[in-house]
Amino acid sequence: MPVPRPRALVFDVMGTVVDDVGGVREATVAALARRGDDEQAAIRVAAATATHLTELMRRVSSGDRPWASHRDLRAEAVRAAVSEVGLAPLDGGLVAQLVDVVETFKPWPDSAAGLDRLRTHRLVVALSNADPDELAFLSLTGGLAWHLALSTRPSQAFKPDPRAYEVAIDTLDLRPGQVMMVAAHVWDLRGAARLGLQTCYVQRPDEGPPPEDEFDLVVSDLLELADALGAPAR
Amino acid sequence: MPVPRPRALVFDVMGTVVDDVGGVREATVAALARRGDDEQAAIRVAAATATHLTELMRRVSSGDRPWASHRDLRAEAVRAAVSEVGLAPLDGGLVAQLVDVVETFKPWPDSAAGLDRLRTHRLVVALSNADPDELAFLSLTGGLAWHLALSTRPSQAFKPDPRAYEVAIDTLDLRPGQVMMVAAHVWDLRGAARLGLQTCYVQRPDEGPPPEDEFDLVVSDLLELADALGAPAR
Repeated sequence: MPVPRPRALVFDVMGTVVDDVGGVREATVAALARRGDDEQAAIRVAAATATHLTELMRRVSSGDRPWASHRDLRAEAVRAAVSEVGLAPLDGGLVAQLVDVVETFKPWPDSAAGLDRLRTHRLVVALSNADPDELAFLSLTGGLAWHLALSTRPSQAFKPDPRAYEVAIDTLDLRPGQVMMVAAHVWDLRGAARLGLQTCYVQRPDEGPPPEDEFDLVVSDLLELADALGAPAR
Repeated sequence: MPVPRPRALVFDVMGTVVDDVGGVREATVAALARRGDDEQAAIRVAAATATHLTELMRRVSSGDRPWASHRDLRAEAVRAAVSEVGLAPLDGGLVAQLVDVVETFKPWPDSAAGLDRLRTHRLVVALSNADPDELAFLSLTGGLAWHLALSTRPSQAFKPDPRAYEVAIDTLDLRPGQVMMVAAHVWDLRGAARLGLQTCYVQRPDEGPPPEDEFDLVVSDLLELADALGAPAR
């Protein structure tokens, strides 16, 4: 198989570079325990938050509802999740706490070192549905750094909507085929592939292996990606 | 003097983090020598390019002329500078070469290490009049990395226009007083101060010392800035 030679690597962040699922679960359990809620119920709230957030982003992208920031959509998702699980409504302070958690998501163990290696070799760009300030503070907390970190916000759509990927293509002034999308989500890579981007699937815990032969590259983590692209070790 | 405690450091790039003046001079001399132009004339072209570029950006910000990208304005500035110095017009290939030079500007010796230290401690953000792709490739070439790298482009104005600084304030969702602008140019820091940002003057070669007591901090390089803010050594 020929080695792909993208000029830029565009990284999904949530789930791919940081553990958003674990971060939300941990924060939700801790926050709800403080008012005496059951741990199993809190874990269900965390899972339902993710489902509601995805659905809210889809509705914004499709035009079903007006644009709202990622932060505002997460607040709405948290409230809907608590209600769905049958718990008492959260006060505003607790909701804010569960929204701000994005800025504290922990990178996977290989992420910072993998990005460090890749940055010596390729353009390393983030493209996230999160707001740009969430992305910036999350990078500070996790020791992550970029040549460019982009939020899909200017498109007023969210991945996997094509307009969201065009933010990266337009900003970099590259052709889609010169760009490789790196993500741990099949839906994200399929969205990027529809526009002609190269694709790299990163196998993260709790994500299944991708359908065979669907992507240009499949790696177990960002260090293996650095190896695959020939980025020098540090 | 109390130590300033900004939540974010926003860096001017051209002249502050990389040596744009030296990079333009070197590239202009090399390009013009290849068609037999005199070195002293080439040095005058390089200086005139900077003057024309500043004036073109000022005219865009003031509304005197429609918005154009930094790259397109530089191409126009190069052509105007060659004509002003009395040399024969450049062909398109040479103009493109003198525009692309932005992506190859060398960082000052302290820049990469200073940013590395500061990133462990503060939000480290670039804010440049350059296009975002110029900023990205320049960072790759120079080994620079950011939590967020912003072009003033979305404002369709250039620093020191207030709208250009608002790109950083709005993107970070911070109050102006929580942000420190770091620059080697008095005009840039005065522009930021008008909006209420804290200011740090970096003393670079060929830039005079700033008017006394005008800025919150004055440092000789980015390592001294890291010391001043208490960022741990690496």
